[in-house]
Amino acid sequence: MSSNALYAQSGGVTAVINATACGIIEAARQNGETIDTVYAGKNGIIGVLREQLYNLNLLSDEDVANIKHTPGGAFGSCRFKLKDLESQRKEYERLIEVFKAHNIRYFFYNGGGDSSDTAYKVSQIGEKMGFPVQCIGVPKTIDNDLPITDNCPGFGSVAKYIAVSTIEASLDVKSMAESSTKVFVLEVMGRHAGWIAAAAGVGKQQDSDPPHIILFPEVAFDHEKFMGKVRYSVENYGYCTIVVSEGVQNKEGEFLADAGTTDAFGHKQLGGVAPLIANMIKSELGYKYHWAVSDYLQRSARHIASLTDVEQAYAVGKAAVELAVAGKNAVMPVIVRESNNPYKWSIGTAELKDMANVEKMMPEDYIGEDGMSITEACREYVQPLIAGESYPPYKDGLPCYVSPELTLEKQKLEPFDVK
Amino acid sequence: MSSNALYAQSGGVTAVINATACGIIEAARQNGETIDTVYAGKNGIIGVLREQLYNLNLLSDEDVANIKHTPGGAFGSCRFKLKDLESQRKEYERLIEVFKAHNIRYFFYNGGGDSSDTAYKVSQIGEKMGFPVQCIGVPKTIDNDLPITDNCPGFGSVAKYIAVSTIEASLDVKSMAESSTKVFVLEVMGRHAGWIAAAAGVGKQQDSDPPHIILFPEVAFDHEKFMGKVRYSVENYGYCTIVVSEGVQNKEGEFLADAGTTDAFGHKQLGGVAPLIANMIKSELGYKYHWAVSDYLQRSARHIASLTDVEQAYAVGKAAVELAVAGKNAVMPVIVRESNNPYKWSIGTAELKDMANVEKMMPEDYIGEDGMSITEACREYVQPLIAGESYPPYKDGLPCYVSPELTLEKQKLEPFDVK
Repeated sequence: MSSNALYAQSGGVTAVINATACGIIEAARQNGETIDTVYAGKNGIIGVLREQLYNLNLLSDEDVANIKHTPGGAFGSCRFKLKDLESQRKEYERLIEVFKAHNIRYFFYNGGGDSSDTAYKVSQIGEKMGFPVQCIGVPKTIDNDLPITDNCPGFGSVAKYIAVSTIEASLDVKSMAESSTKVFVLEVMGRHAGWIAAAAGVGKQQDSDPPHIILFPEVAFDHEKFMGKVRYSVENYGYCTIVVSEGVQNKEGEFLADAGTTDAFGHKQLGGVAPLIANMIKSELGYKYHWAVSDYLQRSARHIASLTDVEQAYAVGKAAVELAVAGKNAVMPVIVRESNNPYKWSIGTAELKDMANVEKMMPEDYIGEDGMSITEACREYVQPLIAGESYPPYKDGLPCYVSPELTLEKQKLEPFDVK
Repeated sequence: MSSNALYAQSGGVTAVINATACGIIEAARQNGETIDTVYAGKNGIIGVLREQLYNLNLLSDEDVANIKHTPGGAFGSCRFKLKDLESQRKEYERLIEVFKAHNIRYFFYNGGGDSSDTAYKVSQIGEKMGFPVQCIGVPKTIDNDLPITDNCPGFGSVAKYIAVSTIEASLDVKSMAESSTKVFVLEVMGRHAGWIAAAAGVGKQQDSDPPHIILFPEVAFDHEKFMGKVRYSVENYGYCTIVVSEGVQNKEGEFLADAGTTDAFGHKQLGGVAPLIANMIKSELGYKYHWAVSDYLQRSARHIASLTDVEQAYAVGKAAVELAVAGKNAVMPVIVRESNNPYKWSIGTAELKDMANVEKMMPEDYIGEDGMSITEACREYVQPLIAGESYPPYKDGLPCYVSPELTLEKQKLEPFDVK
């Protein structure tokens, strides 16, 4: 007897999270004998708690194909962390009630470490409550900080955007540096792990190539050494391109720029380290500067998505359904790097309990000895992840992104208050 | 008897200024009976004054073709304004001396209003000094603020970048707005004219589409009206995307964010109005925000260049040479819009004296009645300029941008001190 499936997007969205959604929906449609209706939580897990479920079976095949090249979260996402079973038992039990009411036996949760943790707990509580649900985590995070998987869908496209933008802006600065701007600072995302900042260095072949300085969250900011390197770059190459991770910290472990606000997971909301660094340079070295903060632009830039990333995002979605159909529970499809030259990858399987609450930092041997560059090993790791272009179709000069009409399933339960 | 030509890039570079350079060099090579050697000033007019001239005849045809898809200024540019003939007679005379020493009879000056003014004055002083030089201005400015020409090469590609980025980031914000960021502020370039900000609105079809608010330099910032519209957008559409021009001013005519420094032309160097606006909203309305400042990224983004823009940039370069060969002087090839539907354009000719020191503002009927949107007339104007994609070739995930080796011509004159 077939039952239903639920898909939910979690946390910050990416340029390719909808490619994963597409993979899940298309694979579910190919497995109609096992999976009947695919639902999606409106704005993620919050919508599931509220019993706001989109019926994705009503989407045409064309709609499903079109979301593959559309950035953002097609069904909405949220930052809502379900903590331990004791303090949030009510929420966990509500999830199972909703699943039961709609005969949902498969739960695909598309997110990072926190979501793996939630999915794992749902698999436990369902069992206990006598309504077992097969919970499959599906990896997604631009931060690339999940353990076990070689890389995370979403990262490759941000990496490509940052690598390309660094080269482009540097060509601009370089051509005017003699009489104008000498220092360019680009702030990129990455709270605790410097993967995105590292990606800026993937096109660098010689010392004179940009970026001349990368500031990682993993390396405490060394003021004197930094200023020395800025001066050296300007004096020897005519200009200096700096890529700075939003999470860069001082020796005391404090964020250099701290907006002072926190998100639902207790993470500090950052931003604004680029102008801070730029002003520091201006006042100490006197160089004219420009700075950019690409913020959401970097993680939504579907127009410059990596083909590798799009293919992997789709593949983990498809594999998640195949794992469910094969009867697996509390697992996550992960990306396995088979070889670098040529780059080959496959899909493996990890246990959800091993994915949760572990942040994968940059390995020490990926960061150069000066603490402000990447090594050849890092370049070899990142390069294949940005390879290939996957352009969306265009009409009248703009990408054909879609927001398909979504229909909510009729509610069967009492309202539930989500705090 | 054939003589030589000089090409110089001036002011801020663009994603397509090298396409113009390519057009000039290729057209000059096709007119070898008239133009012998093409030189380029190293870093623009500064290099000409210093007699630092790259010999472009040494570039291979392949190099020339490749710079067409490379952003930035292939030969360097500068912000160096030659003022009136009286106060800077020494510099104007030096230019003619350099031209004479290298038998340069054609001067192609690729820039905006200030450069048109310089080129016009050079044509006058050459005549007076008995060494007539045919001076052809070649239009370039992302600000789109030159008179007479329908639009300026460089603008279309920035416009496309901003239009696409606005849509992409908004899809991201929209999908998380219920529980997270509700307001997104994107700061774009444009000191006095709001053309770039206006481009953000080109994809908007209904009120609920982003951007919900555009702040133009042409419209004094109305605090109360602005906050009302932010609240309305969040309450009715769930989120609010704001595109703000760096040059937005208060009712007293002061820039909202004023970095306090000025460039060589006396223009204020701006930046940082996005965080200012975002913080203003947070403190008054309490909405969670994100902001981005794309800065140089927007004007160097050759990866998302408009095909129309690339073709027009190339065409004005080619036309400049044809005007020179036809014996014209003190003129500029301009873009003439023949029709909107279908979009058709041709190259016309304007007098340099009519191009200089006039800034073309947005027409009043391009700005919506609320002062924070664009009209259908504006959309019809901008749309064809972003049409078509012109992707650079890629290798290993990165664009194949080139920096061809350049060779300086042997100097013949005494050194000259450029202040």
